[in-house]
Amino acid sequence: LARNADIKVVVDDADNARDISAAAIASKSQIGVLVDVNIRIDRCGVEPGEPTTTLAKIVDGLPGLNFEGLNGYEGHVFGLGDERIPETLEALEKLQFAVAEVKAAGLPVGTVSAGGTSTHDITSKVPEVTEIQAGSYIFMDGQYVDQELAFGPALTIMTQVISRPVADRAILDVGLKSIANDYGPPRVMGLDGAEFTKLSEEHGTLALEESAQGLVHGDVVHLLPSHAGTTINIHDYYFCVRNGILEDVVEVAGRGKFR
Amino acid sequence: LARNADIKVVVDDADNARDISAAAIASKSQIGVLVDVNIRIDRCGVEPGEPTTTLAKIVDGLPGLNFEGLNGYEGHVFGLGDERIPETLEALEKLQFAVAEVKAAGLPVGTVSAGGTSTHDITSKVPEVTEIQAGSYIFMDGQYVDQELAFGPALTIMTQVISRPVADRAILDVGLKSIANDYGPPRVMGLDGAEFTKLSEEHGTLALEESAQGLVHGDVVHLLPSHAGTTINIHDYYFCVRNGILEDVVEVAGRGKFR
Repeated sequence: LARNADIKVVVDDADNARDISAAAIASKSQIGVLVDVNIRIDRCGVEPGEPTTTLAKIVDGLPGLNFEGLNGYEGHVFGLGDERIPETLEALEKLQFAVAEVKAAGLPVGTVSAGGTSTHDITSKVPEVTEIQAGSYIFMDGQYVDQELAFGPALTIMTQVISRPVADRAILDVGLKSIANDYGPPRVMGLDGAEFTKLSEEHGTLALEESAQGLVHGDVVHLLPSHAGTTINIHDYYFCVRNGILEDVVEVAGRGKFR
Repeated sequence: LARNADIKVVVDDADNARDISAAAIASKSQIGVLVDVNIRIDRCGVEPGEPTTTLAKIVDGLPGLNFEGLNGYEGHVFGLGDERIPETLEALEKLQFAVAEVKAAGLPVGTVSAGGTSTHDITSKVPEVTEIQAGSYIFMDGQYVDQELAFGPALTIMTQVISRPVADRAILDVGLKSIANDYGPPRVMGLDGAEFTKLSEEHGTLALEESAQGLVHGDVVHLLPSHAGTTINIHDYYFCVRNGILEDVVEVAGRGKFR
């Protein structure tokens, strides 16, 4: 792949870097490498300072690899409210420190990648950062609505009413197999007084206030998922609608590719 | 489809029954119909007694439809512990009442379908019940382990360690896009002292006690998902292993068919 395209991989381990180097040599290609720095999410990544600089030097010295810079991710700030800005800047200070240390060791740091959709407006103002990983801005979802970011939601799930057993309850043909619930239930779009009380495997249960009790069997209800990432993953196609007209059908090409 | 196979549909609405009748006539077929009874889960279904009997009579009178019996589901008892048996029997008394009423109205009730995996051993002892909907027994999953049912788990997800940043933390190549979390995090199989602290979109974070700290990059870790239903839905194939040998690869034929 690296012979035909400019790919970059992120590493946080010297043995892993050596394996990638061996693979690059075997396939006669060069692979760009960023070193992953733990700036507070406490998932992957080496610590800023000496551990980052040491790994950067190892990568720089390995044949087949080009050391290109550092990667950080301040994903832990999600949902922090007022603390979002200071917490993001505090995490990025660690990344700035790591960049300074690597540069002081004599290595050029071409790429500094960081940020997410919820911090794009904070992280993009930090001078060292050259790349923002804000992949969700294209769709947005329910979890971002209350954060008042500059992007509107563009991904909804179309469902139908399949049962109206009593006046204040409607059942939709949607469940955990067709919409994600990991950041909470979906929001009902364009219909006041309808709220999820339960999302089962194959059923969605809505509690209806009087304003929404006109719903009947077969009515279409549009939902805004709380999490686009884990909703897209269970669908095969995007149906692209503009002004009520279906303009395109796009395959979700990455779906199921984790095996 | 009904011309070639014996299919049965469940209805809880007279208009819906009329639509199915019209479709059956148009395609010159006969469709078997069960009436859905709400026996306490408060999702779909008509109330037992008069509403059930009235709908059964309507179905019985519609051309193209064969009234075959009643459907109930006591899924609300899941996780009730000691209350599981009395709560299940109480719900089934409603179904027994509905059956008696429909029979008293002169209609034969051939099928009485109820039960789930967690109540199969209770519901199957109720004399009126002719069919148990216990689909999960074939795989089982983490949510059932503590219920000590008669079936063992047969579905696991194979993952690998992709990062070992510190002694007491390992990161797996598993996340919400490859394993369900709706009944809690997965369990780690065959490795003492490893527990999930977080399941992100693409990463799984394990806290490791000393007994599990020998894990290194690339080690394989098998996970028991808490919910098989919503895990299978995001995979394309079952890989069938017996005594460590891959014997078959079976497509998950129903995946993505909700659109």
